[in-house]
Amino acid sequence: MQLQTTDEKPAYWKSAVSRVTDEKVYVRGYDLEDLIGEISFTAATFLLIRGRVPSPEEARALDAVLSGVLDYALEKPGTVAARYVVSANPSMAIGMSAACMAVGKHTLATEDTGRFILAAHQEYLESGLPLKEFAGGKVDRMRQAKERIPGLGHPVFKKVDPRGALLRQIAVEGGLWSEAAETYEALHHAFTQLPGKADIPINDVGVMAAVMLSLGFSPEEGTGIAILSTLPGVIAHVSEELTGGKPIRVVPREGVKYTANTDGDFAADMARAGWGDKGSEGPMGSSGSEL
Amino acid sequence: MQLQTTDEKPAYWKSAVSRVTDEKVYVRGYDLEDLIGEISFTAATFLLIRGRVPSPEEARALDAVLSGVLDYALEKPGTVAARYVVSANPSMAIGMSAACMAVGKHTLATEDTGRFILAAHQEYLESGLPLKEFAGGKVDRMRQAKERIPGLGHPVFKKVDPRGALLRQIAVEGGLWSEAAETYEALHHAFTQLPGKADIPINDVGVMAAVMLSLGFSPEEGTGIAILSTLPGVIAHVSEELTGGKPIRVVPREGVKYTANTDGDFAADMARAGWGDKGSEGPMGSSGSEL
Amino acid sequence: MQLQTTDEKPAYWKSAVSRVTDEKVYVRGYDLEDLIGEISFTAATFLLIRGRVPSPEEARALDAVLSGVLDYALEKPGTVAARYVVSANPSMAIGMSAACMAVGKHTLATEDTGRFILAAHQEYLESGLPLKEFAGGKVDRMRQAKERIPGLGHPVFKKVDPRGALLRQIAVEGGLWSEAAETYEALHHAFTQLPGKADIPINDVGVMAAVMLSLGFSPEEGTGIAILSTLPGVIAHVSEELTGGKPIRVVPREGVKYTANTDGDFAADMARAGWGDKGSEGPMGSSGSEL
Amino acid sequence: MQLQTTDEKPAYWKSAVSRVTDEKVYVRGYDLEDLIGEISFTAATFLLIRGRVPSPEEARALDAVLSGVLDYALEKPGTVAARYVVSANPSMAIGMSAACMAVGKHTLATEDTGRFILAAHQEYLESGLPLKEFAGGKVDRMRQAKERIPGLGHPVFKKVDPRGALLRQIAVEGGLWSEAAETYEALHHAFTQLPGKADIPINDVGVMAAVMLSLGFSPEEGTGIAILSTLPGVIAHVSEELTGGKPIRVVPREGVKYTANTDGDFAADMARAGWGDKGSEGPMGSSGSEL
Repeated sequence: MQLQTTDEKPAYWKSAVSRVTDEKVYVRGYDLEDLIGEISFTAATFLLIRGRVPSPEEARALDAVLSGVLDYALEKPGTVAARYVVSANPSMAIGMSAACMAVGKHTLATEDTGRFILAAHQEYLESGLPLKEFAGGKVDRMRQAKERIPGLGHPVFKKVDPRGALLRQIAVEGGLWSEAAETYEALHHAFTQLPGKADIPINDVGVMAAVMLSLGFSPEEGTGIAILSTLPGVIAHVSEELTGGKPIRVVPREGVKYTANTDGDFAADMARAGWGDKGSEGPMGSSGSEL
Repeated sequence: MQLQTTDEKPAYWKSAVSRVTDEKVYVRGYDLEDLIGEISFTAATFLLIRGRVPSPEEARALDAVLSGVLDYALEKPGTVAARYVVSANPSMAIGMSAACMAVGKHTLATEDTGRFILAAHQEYLESGLPLKEFAGGKVDRMRQAKERIPGLGHPVFKKVDPRGALLRQIAVEGGLWSEAAETYEALHHAFTQLPGKADIPINDVGVMAAVMLSLGFSPEEGTGIAILSTLPGVIAHVSEELTGGKPIRVVPREGVKYTANTDGDFAADMARAGWGDKGSEGPMGSSGSEL
Repeated sequence: MQLQTTDEKPAYWKSAVSRVTDEKVYVRGYDLEDLIGEISFTAATFLLIRGRVPSPEEARALDAVLSGVLDYALEKPGTVAARYVVSANPSMAIGMSAACMAVGKHTLATEDTGRFILAAHQEYLESGLPLKEFAGGKVDRMRQAKERIPGLGHPVFKKVDPRGALLRQIAVEGGLWSEAAETYEALHHAFTQLPGKADIPINDVGVMAAVMLSLGFSPEEGTGIAILSTLPGVIAHVSEELTGGKPIRVVPREGVKYTANTDGDFAADMARAGWGDKGSEGPMGSSGSEL
Repeated sequence: MQLQTTDEKPAYWKSAVSRVTDEKVYVRGYDLEDLIGEISFTAATFLLIRGRVPSPEEARALDAVLSGVLDYALEKPGTVAARYVVSANPSMAIGMSAACMAVGKHTLATEDTGRFILAAHQEYLESGLPLKEFAGGKVDRMRQAKERIPGLGHPVFKKVDPRGALLRQIAVEGGLWSEAAETYEALHHAFTQLPGKADIPINDVGVMAAVMLSLGFSPEEGTGIAILSTLPGVIAHVSEELTGGKPIRVVPREGVKYTANTDGDFAADMARAGWGDKGSEGPMGSSGSEL
C-alpha cells in the first residue's frame, strides 16, 4: 500500500528511507514498533542502508566489520580534534561532529580500496580471461605504471594480518566472500609472486573493504559504516574529556617551535607598503574624512 | 600489567579508553583481536563507553534503545542539513558531521530528561520521605513553580506510548529498571492525579532516558547513544542524496517569502551615512591616497 | 518596489537578507554590482548583519573590533582542532568549519558579557535610580550572591588593559559608547571600590562586548563577529598545515598517560557477565542458530 | 629578535602565524596592540595569510574580492544547512560551522579555476611559445580532449560579466593583474574564436580566481577567502533564524515524494531471511540464553 503524496508537479525531494505519518514511523517499509526489541542495532543498520533485512550471516559479518577498529587512542586525528573542540564547547554532539569531519583523503582507506576492487573486478569480467591470468597481467601493468594495490601490507604483520584473516574467515563461513573479493585476492596472490613481496598480507582495511562490498554496500556507504564503528570510542573520549579533561586545551608551548618574529615595526612597514600618514589616506580610511 | 609511560612531569593528556602499541590495540584492557567476531557492535558500544562488558540483558536493553528511533524521514533538521551539505560537498563523512551538529537545545530531550531524573531521585533520597509522598509534594512544587516534567506526553498516544511501553518492558525483564527510573514513574503517577492529566503517558524519550540511566550512562553519554542510533539512517539519506539527489540544492523560490527590497540607492545612502565622495575619504579609503 | 512572491498560503521560509533574481543579486536592498569596489568588507559586514550601511565611525569601530584578536597561535582549541582535522581531511573549508564549532560555553565571553550588560542596563532603567547609586547597589547584591561581573580582570594588566582602552577610545571618538556601555563602566567603577579590587580593569573582551552592543549587534551576532575576526588566522594555520604539516597528526605518546590495562581476559569476563558459550547463546547470537 | 623555544629534539608543531607570550600577542611579527585601530580587517586578513602588510592597491583589490559575493539568499546549500542546524541547535558558532562545511567539489569554483590558471601558465612558460600561439594550441588540445576551461560562461551575461569586469578593472588599476591572469585571458580569447563561443565571457568566479592568484594567495587560501566573504551573510541568516525562525525545521511534507512502502511484514521477512524463532536463535540473540 502506498500512502498518497501530493505531486501534481514533481516534488523537489524524494526519499525511500522512511516515512512519518501522524500515528506511525515506517522504516524501509516496516512499522518501527515491530522492530524495537526484535532487531539488533547491527541488523537495523543493515536494514536502513541496504533497504532489506539481513540474513544472520550478513548481520554477523557486519558485526565483525563494526568491531574491527573500535578505537585508536589519541593516535587518530578525529578523536584528538573532538577533545580539543569539546574543551571549548562542551557538547557531545559537537565532539562527534568534529570526529566525523576528520575523515577524508588521508583516512578513506576502505573507500579507495572498495573503488579499486570494484573497478578491477569489472576489468576482469570484461577481459574474458581466466582469473589467474588476468591477475598476473593486471599486476604487471600496475607495477609498470607504478600504481599500488590498496589494502596490502602492514608495518608489523608478515604473510598474515590476524585481524584481516579473522574477518575474511567470518565472511567465508557466511558465504559472503564475493567474486569481487576473490578477484582482489587473486591480485594479492599475483602481487606476492613479485620479487621481495612474498610476505606482504592483505591488511584489515583491505579485508574490511572486500567484506563491505560483498555485503552490497557502496564504497561511500562503507565509509559511513567505518565511521559509525569508531563513534562509540569517540563518545567514550568525549565523555572522558567532559568529565576529567581540561577546559580550553592548548598545545603546550614546549611542543611548538614558533618561528614568527616579534620585532616587526608596523608603522614603518605600512609606510613602506605605500600607505600615507595615519588618517584619511591611511589603512583606516574606512573611518572616513573625519580622521 | 601496566605498560610504562614516560611521565616524570604529569602528562598533558590522560586516557583510559584504549591504548596502541607497535603490535597491538587494547580496548578497555582487551586485545582487539579477541573481540572481533566475538562481540556484537551493541555490546562493543557498551564496553567502550562503560568500560566493562555488558550482561546479555544490558546488551538487549541497549539494542532496544538503539533501535528506538532509527530514522525520521525529512522531518529531522540534521538529516535535511546533511543532504543540503552533501549536495555541495559530496562526502559521507561531512554529511554525518552535519547531522551530528544539529543536536542541541531543541533536540536534547534524553539529556534533559536524564538530568531531571537524576536530580529528582537525589532529592528523593535526601528527603527521607516515602516515594509516593515525595512524588506528590514534588509535583505540587513543580506545578506551583510552573515547571514541567520532561519526557511526558505525546501528540497522539493517550495513557500509553507503545514504543515507550516496549522499552520499559525490556528493561524490567532484564532487571534494568533502576530506582531512579522508579522515582521518575512515581512522579509521572503523581502527575496523572492532577486534574485533566490522567491520560498523559511517559513518552518514548522519557523511557529511553530512564533506561540509559539504568544502564549507567551519563546524560551526555545518553545523548551520544541517541545520536549514534540515528546515524545509520543518516548514512542511508546521504547515500540516497549522493546517488539520486540534486547537486547544489536550494530552497525552491516558491517556498520563500523574500522581504528584502530591490530598490536601495547605495550611493545616496552612503552619502547620507556620512561618507565623503568616492576616493580617499570614502569607504574604500583603504585604497589609500592613490584614489 | 517589491518583487512578487507566490504566497497564497504563508511561505515556510522568510528572509530579508538578500534576494536573487535571474539577472541580479540584491543585498539588503542594494544591487550587488553597486557595492563591488565601493565598500570595504567591514562596511559590507555591517550592512549584511544590521541591514543598513554604517557611518564611517561605525565602520571604524567595527574594524577595530575585528582586529582585536586576529590570532592566538596554538593556544586556541579551535585552531588546533582545525589543524588536526585537515591533517586527515585536507580541506580549507573543513578546517574553518572545525574552528567555528570550537566556540561555546568556555569561549563565548563576548556573548555572555553582552547579555549581562543588556540585562544590567535594563535593570538600571527600571530602577529609576541615579546611575552611581544603582551601580553601587547592584555590585553589592552581586557580591552577596557571589556572582561575578563578566569582562573584568586580566592575568597581566593592572588598572588598564591597553587593548581594551584603545577600543573604548575609538568607540568614544566615534560617538559610539552607548548608555548601556556607560552602565557597564559604572558597575566596573563601583566594583573597583571594593576592598582589593582597585586595580582590576575592564579587559578587551568586556570592551569588545560593550562596543558591539553600541553598534547595535545582538549578543549572538557579536559572537559571529568575534568568530569572523579569528578566521583569517585560521585560514593561515590551515594553509600552513596543508603545505608544511604532518598527514594524520596524533598526540605524541610521550604526552599521554594511558591508564587502560592491557591484560583483560575477554572470554572469562564475558562468561562472568552471563554470556553462554560461544555460539547461538553468545554475544554473537545475532549470527543465529547456524553457528 | 627570536624568542627561545625549547627544542633539543625537533618540536612536533611548527608555526609562523603568531606567537603568544605572557604579556603580548605577536601577529606575523607585529605587536597586536600596534594593529588595533590602525588596520582595516581586510588588510589584517592579507597580513595574516600572506605574512606581510598589503599595499593600498592590494587591500583595495582584496576588498573588492571580499564583496564580490556577500550573500545568495536561500539558494546556497550552506546557508540553508546552517538555518536547519540552528533550528535544532541554536548556536551562531554551529551555524557558521555548518555553512563552512557545505563547500566542496560542487562549489570550489575559485579553487579549481586557480589550479587551472597556475598549471596553464606554467605550461605556457615551459612552452617557449608566444602567448597567442600557446593559447590557440592549448585551447585546441583541450577541445579535442573534451576538457573545459573553468570560470567561463554565465547563464545571463553575454560577452561581459559586469561583476567580473569590475573586479578585473580594480586589479588592473592597482597593477595587480598578473602574467598568469594574462595567460588565462589569452586562453579565454582563443576560446571565443571557436565557432559559437564568441559571446562567452569570463565570469566573476574566473576573475576572482585570477585576482586572488595575482594577490599571491594559493588556490586553497583563495577558497578560504571566498568562504570568509560569505560569512557575514551567514551570520545575518543565522541571526534571522534564531530570532524569527522555526524551531525544529523540517521539509514540509507536500515538498517530498516518499517512496517507501508502509506494509512490510517484519516477522515474515526476518523468518524468510533465515532468522529462527524469537529467542536465543533470533536477531536479539544478543539477549543471550536467558530468552
